[in-house]
Amino acid sequence: MNRHAFFISDGTGLTAEALGHALLAQFEKIEFEKITVPYVDDEDKARDLVKRINRAAEVDGVRPLVFDTIVDNNIREVISTADGFMVDIFGTFLDPLENELESSSSYTVGKSHSINNAGSYERRIDAVNFALDNDDGARTRHYDEADLILVGASRSGKTPTCLYLALQYGIKAANYPITEEDLEDQKLPGALRTYREKIFGLTIEPERLATIRNERRPNSRYSSIQQCMHEIEEIELMYKRERIPYLNTTAYSVEEISTRIMVTTGLKRHR
Amino acid sequence: MNRHAFFISDGTGLTAEALGHALLAQFEKIEFEKITVPYVDDEDKARDLVKRINRAAEVDGVRPLVFDTIVDNNIREVISTADGFMVDIFGTFLDPLENELESSSSYTVGKSHSINNAGSYERRIDAVNFALDNDDGARTRHYDEADLILVGASRSGKTPTCLYLALQYGIKAANYPITEEDLEDQKLPGALRTYREKIFGLTIEPERLATIRNERRPNSRYSSIQQCMHEIEEIELMYKRERIPYLNTTAYSVEEISTRIMVTTGLKRHR
Repeated sequence: MNRHAFFISDGTGLTAEALGHALLAQFEKIEFEKITVPYVDDEDKARDLVKRINRAAEVDGVRPLVFDTIVDNNIREVISTADGFMVDIFGTFLDPLENELESSSSYTVGKSHSINNAGSYERRIDAVNFALDNDDGARTRHYDEADLILVGASRSGKTPTCLYLALQYGIKAANYPITEEDLEDQKLPGALRTYREKIFGLTIEPERLATIRNERRPNSRYSSIQQCMHEIEEIELMYKRERIPYLNTTAYSVEEISTRIMVTTGLKRHR
Repeated sequence: MNRHAFFISDGTGLTAEALGHALLAQFEKIEFEKITVPYVDDEDKARDLVKRINRAAEVDGVRPLVFDTIVDNNIREVISTADGFMVDIFGTFLDPLENELESSSSYTVGKSHSINNAGSYERRIDAVNFALDNDDGARTRHYDEADLILVGASRSGKTPTCLYLALQYGIKAANYPITEEDLEDQKLPGALRTYREKIFGLTIEPERLATIRNERRPNSRYSSIQQCMHEIEEIELMYKRERIPYLNTTAYSVEEISTRIMVTTGLKRHR
């Protein structure tokens, strides 16, 4: 039997979900039925939700967990009547923060994922467009604008990482695939030499690379384990020879790859 | 004078940052100097960080706020010696959750942004590739695989939304730009008619659209307010005529657009 866990917000629900998922990940033996309910922004919606939580409690025979970041006190009060175990995130932390900061919370909804901070938001969208325009070595003439140039073998994780860095941090990241031709003269490709300080390398276990490539082009030379081993070996040698910082992505998610790149390079989020 | 706020984790720091940003957004009058420190995963790193927090306290003349999601008790103990106002996120909630769930926390680090749940992670990366391959009406032959087809005027926010839906939820979203030609016969474009139930429309204020287009192609017919007004008027008429659900994106971030689409369409995160 799965136990229900609700993540509730009057905004996007992303904060309640992020914290709730992180906490529940610590209880590996229990299976949760996770339900995110964003935009609970009036008391009617709150009352409907209370019914839904109570139904889940009846079905499960045990009260659901309810993680909420609801800012409005009236709405939160309605939610608190539900037959759930309440993890009241804002309620728990806002009071002590108000005391410490000697300032009142503004109790405004949905602040953290809005476009209120318009400069920072536009920068993120610009960075997404930059990543798309400068994907896969498509162009190299905008590299002076880049915060970062990710290099690595084809399918080693460059593109999703660039997109995540753009969306999450507003980092303008281009990416350049290192091909066999590039490897022939055992040096950094010419287009990259001027931007040495912006370059970060990705590498990956050849077996994993072959699996990923086989999904795209099954049974090709490109996807063969021999080819992948050869490319990765040469690329890692080149990183070492050219003293390019690099990361093996095999065991990491895009979130982990991105935050590790931020730490290693010292890049800062754009605000 | 800005007050320092630290977001600390032994993992990516994304959860501490998300919650910390959300809480601090409630204190609009105070300017914070926000610093995220991920991968604080041994006591030496923790001791260095304590020094850094203490230096910030001296410089500011007031103790920094410290939001942490550190799982390891020994590391958390070192951090707690710093001269900061501690918002101990896991410490606050894990105990009551252990009681409620009658289960022990596994105290494992970095669970929530790892690739542990490999199926779900691969689905997200597949979805990113799907969004890139099916961007901007490039191909329509994979629409049977799509969870969602976003339509709208050029530069109304389709591509960043598709990428966010992919990275955050593993949703396979294609996008199709509605052009003047499409609008001539006042009907849903032919390529889309078979997939009517997957279609969601975006619209945007013509003034905002003209601003965005002008950044790409200044002083063109494409970017003129007349052209933008004309396209948006026709597109909204088409949405109404064809009963396509749609959203005006002008005031919303990609996070808000995406979560609202999830709510309206009833799409579920892929796990």
